[in-house]
Amino acid sequence: MSDLYDEVTSFKDALRVTAEAVEDQLLDLMADPDGPEAYVWEAMRYAVKGGKRLRAFLAMQSGHLFDVDEEAMLRVAAAVECIHAYSLVHDDLPSMDDDTLRRGRPTTHVEFGEATAVLAGDALQSLAFDILADHDTHGDPYIRCDLVSRLAQAIGGHGMVGGQMIDLEAESQELDIGAVIRLHRLKTGALIAFACQSGAIMGRASRDARHALDAFAHDLGLAFQVVDDLLDISGDAETIGKTPGKDEARGKATFVSILGAARARDQAELLANQAKRHLDLFDEKADFLRDVCSYVTERKN
Amino acid sequence: MSDLYDEVTSFKDALRVTAEAVEDQLLDLMADPDGPEAYVWEAMRYAVKGGKRLRAFLAMQSGHLFDVDEEAMLRVAAAVECIHAYSLVHDDLPSMDDDTLRRGRPTTHVEFGEATAVLAGDALQSLAFDILADHDTHGDPYIRCDLVSRLAQAIGGHGMVGGQMIDLEAESQELDIGAVIRLHRLKTGALIAFACQSGAIMGRASRDARHALDAFAHDLGLAFQVVDDLLDISGDAETIGKTPGKDEARGKATFVSILGAARARDQAELLANQAKRHLDLFDEKADFLRDVCSYVTERKN
Repeated sequence: MSDLYDEVTSFKDALRVTAEAVEDQLLDLMADPDGPEAYVWEAMRYAVKGGKRLRAFLAMQSGHLFDVDEEAMLRVAAAVECIHAYSLVHDDLPSMDDDTLRRGRPTTHVEFGEATAVLAGDALQSLAFDILADHDTHGDPYIRCDLVSRLAQAIGGHGMVGGQMIDLEAESQELDIGAVIRLHRLKTGALIAFACQSGAIMGRASRDARHALDAFAHDLGLAFQVVDDLLDISGDAETIGKTPGKDEARGKATFVSILGAARARDQAELLANQAKRHLDLFDEKADFLRDVCSYVTERKN
Repeated sequence: MSDLYDEVTSFKDALRVTAEAVEDQLLDLMADPDGPEAYVWEAMRYAVKGGKRLRAFLAMQSGHLFDVDEEAMLRVAAAVECIHAYSLVHDDLPSMDDDTLRRGRPTTHVEFGEATAVLAGDALQSLAFDILADHDTHGDPYIRCDLVSRLAQAIGGHGMVGGQMIDLEAESQELDIGAVIRLHRLKTGALIAFACQSGAIMGRASRDARHALDAFAHDLGLAFQVVDDLLDISGDAETIGKTPGKDEARGKATFVSILGAARARDQAELLANQAKRHLDLFDEKADFLRDVCSYVTERKN
């Protein structure tokens, strides 16, 4: 496991190898209790399955830059995916986005019921912190506390949840481009930024390296979101694995509704190129991170 | 603030002083952002207000036993109350217990809408971990990691959320007394046990002291729950601050439905006395913890 990328030559392979390793790690971390509470664990395992694992990949590649032990880094990547999965489960709830399709399958509340979906999301959040605070993640408790603090801030009311709040309010409010950027910087950007930083924290990277990764994450996260908005109007359910056209149906302000599709497409390219340039201070170890920039704008799901 | 109990002579005063100090601490920790995400913070502040603060009191008194700095201990107590509040907000959701009254006020989803209530609960959970991992809570990162790990385990799928899962399933299943005990050991007992342990962790208490507090928490938590079940059949909404008679209406197995009211009452007394005896190895510093045992069985809300 400690040489995950040894035989990997292409970006696509690297993405696949990471997705498989993180899925194994996640299932390892989710024991199957005997008791009647087993049902919530079943829902948790269902919720973390599948997906592009982009956040896990960013975490793994961030660790790769600073020669962090891959087994330890897989734990951090798994914690990030727990949080991502929890946010999707709660986001899809009938009282929130009311979505029935995710990652090409019925959403967790459709499959397990709404109450169990709420609980599964809650427990996935706790599990992420449990993983990060564990000695197996890093021998130095300062580093573990740093991970916990930064993740808690990235996903709390000033981070991801704050962004989801703005998103909910956006349905009844006119947002300008600045407000839409802020929404996504919190809603999806903060967790992406944590993933990109996590390897730097684990590997005690220099301040310059951390700043570069922050700037990279900022531009990449926005590029990712602009493409999401484009896919929402152009994709079909089978390809994107979720229900398309929802933003438009709700009259939500998106990059596309504000800029139009052509300018939004240009903007995504520009942001992705800008993200790539922030990696200039790294050597070829950052090549897969560079590839992520093209992947994000070219993706179809 | 560092001599919270100096002028306190009665248990009632101690409870009141603690509740006030923890409420101040909570509001301090919940900054009021300018942005459109302010609404979720408003919901969070609403959710943490009021209540008996029993868990905060247990944490503060546990710290008192080992001369832990009171300001630091108030942070831990606040984190525990964030978790308790989050669990109530999610528990009261229409898809869960569907309750409209809590702590004598409309539940958070009635006041702020269901989506905001989901988000407020989520952010309260993150905030608790943010508080615990912060340097202000303890200078030693080992201790902070220990707090984070133990809280995460106490409230996750093998702890509080696991208990809530069993509780949901209890509506469609016959539970025997053993299963009901297990349900409550997870659903309410695990967080109460964490609160009782938290001062011992902060104060690097001996193994014997920790074991005694664990045993104390176990019996106290069950006594508390038995009385909850009794109040559910005998209390009125105005006194207990929540809707009475819900367990019976749903045909849920409770201590009262299995044992009958008289035997349940005896059982609560027995557990409370047993809890008190576990404190025998502590001196008069544990007197308020001893008083909690009587308080729990005599309470009317």
